[in-house]
Amino acid sequence: MFLEKIKSPKEVKELSGQELQVLVDEARAALLEKVSQYGGHNGPNLGVVEMTVAMHYVFDSPKDKFIFDVSHQSYIHKMLTGRGQAFTDPDHYEDVSGYTNPQESEHDLFTIGHTSTSLSLANGVAKARDLKAEDYNVVAVIGDGSLSGGLAYEGLNNIIEVGTNTIVIVNDNDQSIAENHGGIYKNLKNLRDSNGQAEDNFFKSLGFEYHYLEEGNNVEQLIGLFESVKDADHPVLLHIHTIKGFGFKYAEENREDFHAGGPFSLETGEYLSSGPAVPTYTSATADLLIDKMANDPKVVVVNGGTPMILFSQEQRKALGKQYVDVGIAEEHAMTMTAGLAKNGAKPIWAVFSTFMQRSYDQISHDLALNHLPGTILVFMASVNGMNDESHLGIFDIPMLSHIPNLVYLAPTNKEEYLAMLDWSIEQSDHPVAIRVPMGELKETGVADTTDYSQRYKNEVTQKGAKAAIIGVGNFYQLALEVAEELSTKHGIKATLINPKFISGLDQELLDSLENNHDLVVTLEDGVLEGGYGQTVASYLGDKDVKVINYGVDKLFHDRYDAPELLSQSGMSVDKIVQRILANVDVSLADQLAII
Amino acid sequence: MFLEKIKSPKEVKELSGQELQVLVDEARAALLEKVSQYGGHNGPNLGVVEMTVAMHYVFDSPKDKFIFDVSHQSYIHKMLTGRGQAFTDPDHYEDVSGYTNPQESEHDLFTIGHTSTSLSLANGVAKARDLKAEDYNVVAVIGDGSLSGGLAYEGLNNIIEVGTNTIVIVNDNDQSIAENHGGIYKNLKNLRDSNGQAEDNFFKSLGFEYHYLEEGNNVEQLIGLFESVKDADHPVLLHIHTIKGFGFKYAEENREDFHAGGPFSLETGEYLSSGPAVPTYTSATADLLIDKMANDPKVVVVNGGTPMILFSQEQRKALGKQYVDVGIAEEHAMTMTAGLAKNGAKPIWAVFSTFMQRSYDQISHDLALNHLPGTILVFMASVNGMNDESHLGIFDIPMLSHIPNLVYLAPTNKEEYLAMLDWSIEQSDHPVAIRVPMGELKETGVADTTDYSQRYKNEVTQKGAKAAIIGVGNFYQLALEVAEELSTKHGIKATLINPKFISGLDQELLDSLENNHDLVVTLEDGVLEGGYGQTVASYLGDKDVKVINYGVDKLFHDRYDAPELLSQSGMSVDKIVQRILANVDVSLADQLAII
Repeated sequence: MFLEKIKSPKEVKELSGQELQVLVDEARAALLEKVSQYGGHNGPNLGVVEMTVAMHYVFDSPKDKFIFDVSHQSYIHKMLTGRGQAFTDPDHYEDVSGYTNPQESEHDLFTIGHTSTSLSLANGVAKARDLKAEDYNVVAVIGDGSLSGGLAYEGLNNIIEVGTNTIVIVNDNDQSIAENHGGIYKNLKNLRDSNGQAEDNFFKSLGFEYHYLEEGNNVEQLIGLFESVKDADHPVLLHIHTIKGFGFKYAEENREDFHAGGPFSLETGEYLSSGPAVPTYTSATADLLIDKMANDPKVVVVNGGTPMILFSQEQRKALGKQYVDVGIAEEHAMTMTAGLAKNGAKPIWAVFSTFMQRSYDQISHDLALNHLPGTILVFMASVNGMNDESHLGIFDIPMLSHIPNLVYLAPTNKEEYLAMLDWSIEQSDHPVAIRVPMGELKETGVADTTDYSQRYKNEVTQKGAKAAIIGVGNFYQLALEVAEELSTKHGIKATLINPKFISGLDQELLDSLENNHDLVVTLEDGVLEGGYGQTVASYLGDKDVKVINYGVDKLFHDRYDAPELLSQSGMSVDKIVQRILANVDVSLADQLAII
Repeated sequence: MFLEKIKSPKEVKELSGQELQVLVDEARAALLEKVSQYGGHNGPNLGVVEMTVAMHYVFDSPKDKFIFDVSHQSYIHKMLTGRGQAFTDPDHYEDVSGYTNPQESEHDLFTIGHTSTSLSLANGVAKARDLKAEDYNVVAVIGDGSLSGGLAYEGLNNIIEVGTNTIVIVNDNDQSIAENHGGIYKNLKNLRDSNGQAEDNFFKSLGFEYHYLEEGNNVEQLIGLFESVKDADHPVLLHIHTIKGFGFKYAEENREDFHAGGPFSLETGEYLSSGPAVPTYTSATADLLIDKMANDPKVVVVNGGTPMILFSQEQRKALGKQYVDVGIAEEHAMTMTAGLAKNGAKPIWAVFSTFMQRSYDQISHDLALNHLPGTILVFMASVNGMNDESHLGIFDIPMLSHIPNLVYLAPTNKEEYLAMLDWSIEQSDHPVAIRVPMGELKETGVADTTDYSQRYKNEVTQKGAKAAIIGVGNFYQLALEVAEELSTKHGIKATLINPKFISGLDQELLDSLENNHDLVVTLEDGVLEGGYGQTVASYLGDKDVKVINYGVDKLFHDRYDAPELLSQSGMSVDKIVQRILANVDVSLADQLAII
């Protein structure tokens, strides 16, 4: 077996043409074995086995610099740069992250996980090389799906501006996570259909020397192409046609499902079921939106290349013109949403928390400054969301809640969530974001009739004394458990508050707490710094009541265990109760009186 | 005079061809008269007089929807839509803002001030029209300078994707604020040089029907072109060559200086001097950076199309390859900076606070997550900065200071600032942002020898008791004045603190305050919510000390008077002193003892 002998790219370079093909086959087999058992980005990596082997054969990493866009297609690169065991030995599957990671290897330049950054990073790396008067190749690999992001275009422009060696590989498998959207994809199709000869070549229009390769899964042709441009003294763009999921027929046939996923059967291509489908916050959202759209042609859902966030392929088809996928282009998604709202549509932008942060300026300047009634549904905003350091959902409260005009809502159960969503869609005064709850669907069975136009009105779900506990969104449940423990074990009936609004304070309520409370505790499912709790602490800073804010530390937590992280942050029922007891004045008489 | 009779676009439509030319001349004369006296975006508006008259002649606003990118070129549009008096009568010059503004007129759809948003907004407006089955033209006007922004590219892509009527006018005056940078500009030049016939047309590559007009300051030709595409059932792009500053020779000759500015002489084209040049934080920055660059080829300054932030045209030329203008592309500026830092260069990105917010994800994901030692110089971050609602510099502390790894520094004088900048450039461990001070240069005459690698170490500049006042950056001076007033008038020697770091707390110092202080006051030059002070309030929430945070309200304050806004926010020496006195325990004996 060649693969096990590859400890560095050096060993790749020593193989003959025939041996390289054997290596390709072994690498693909190991990849399939691992992703079928362990999950991961299957399709993108299957498509670039040949390309990655050829890159390491021709170029000289780490002297030559490789930068993979998003880097979810870097598995083969990892196999060939000293990390093969993480793909051949199940005991070591967890040794590597799913993205490039400088802590793993000098062959990985950056921690990456968001799209469309590779060209700008490469432009910086190349410019630094030039300033230092050094001499090597800078190679960026970007998928066609990532080309819809404006940052990729800015990168292309500036690579031409700098004008020295940078080799851009466009890995064109004619697929984003789902199908592609936007004018650029018509150009890529024209170029594929004409073997690179079509008129009005997008890349040439920006000034690139352009080469097309139809057989992007042919290692010999790839090597020939790379050798022909290696050490160029100017920017070169290689448009390479690959097949997403290549070498595994189920992945080739179903490219959307085989973008990424959990374990699957190599025999049938079926993902291993995790039991029967149950209603979730996602399905509840989809149900409400589909119903709304059926009854009102002005309701429209906008999405930025992550359609699985809400709808299946069939649902999207059925929604027709009321579902808009703008490609991976979060800035456009937000600004288009603002335009839709201005002209009387009722737009809902569904986005993962980690990708929403790409649109800070558009949320502030285009939506919020203009007071436009668009709705942002923020998914996976939780310590319990994605847990890779490049995909965290814990920064959205500091980011969104301090933007003027924007109403940020944090529901605690299904009824509340759907009532907020319905209100947001039908009102015309406020930009609204909703922090979609994480975890199992919680149903109260009682419709929520709150008037959400009464901004910042919190709900007191239990009136008590001494301690008031504010449980934000997902962590209302934790607040409830703390209150119960205080009551049953310590005879303290605490005040329990569901704030619902996290972009402003219920000042009247907070003022009233001073009278008969020693302590206010806030619990939120995200980072502590800049969060909701700190606005409470500030407001109560000169009042006669203490405040304790709970949240996780301001860090890029990586592949963490959520319960462990929460416990480290002091967020267990027991620890919170103990800290409350240490900060309230509880005489035995008080306790007896309550009991 | 025709101009005075134009109360709405209706009156424009009634003019003959010859009368239109008279209107053009009158409008240009009024424009010149106003901007020469009052200041404003002179060059951009001089260039679009004919285009704007022709737009209102051919199209039917507000039924047809006009969206101006950045909207600093909307003065003529304002003249023709009921706001002529704001340009013809000096007493009414202040009636209108410098950007489109829906509160002024139904002909203005959006409040805009950042670039590259118009196409995405137009895409949303057009899509809403389609959902409602309505029928009219959506017309977006975007300058060539704004085309470097990735959002513009995302907009172009998605206009093609939607596929219905949208008329994109590219107003190509071959100039951004300064010269253009990036591959797209070579394409625009090729198209201009070939009367629109060049191969590899960027716009056609994305799928646009494309028309070129060389004589973009000829009202008759403009009308002909607009009439030919009006009511098209598909996207159309009009590439129109105009002359920035047209009709005022000094502006035509010096297009960078005549992008925008204060009053100038119509006779000589000289800006009215505001006295002899004195050293400023800008000139001090430029001096240090020029010196650094001369001595180290790895030092490089990155800028996103706003070069006047630091350097003159001559200085930029002299800096050669160590000065990089990426065009108006803030995301790229940040991500390229990350790439530069990774490969051993010493990059400094100089940016205005209001535009920095376009790069939240790039700061977080590309620079901070990767621990890269790039430096961000944040200019105009102050209540005393730009005061238009679309250009505020008061949101950067909430935005930046809660991003992990990033060290955000707030100097209070020249020596501190330059020491921080020098440290940041030469260190290799941290991403660093520095809040460049606003206002007059303050010099202590004593070199700052602080070791800024000791993160979060505050400086206690006066040790006292009862009240501790933390003055952040620009507002350290205010804290000092409050301390002096407390001392001289009320016999209280307060503790005075210069935190220097605003992305983390000096916990040891804060802990020590509990012993002999009743109150901690924070003063910061920005929005209260999410700011530095709130992290202090949170940290001290369960300590035996009260906290009062000062900052301005979370609002898009518009064309405000800074001293008035600060006073409304309670930030005058007198008001702060009174509030401190009400919250500390001051016996007469205490006061006498100190006096």
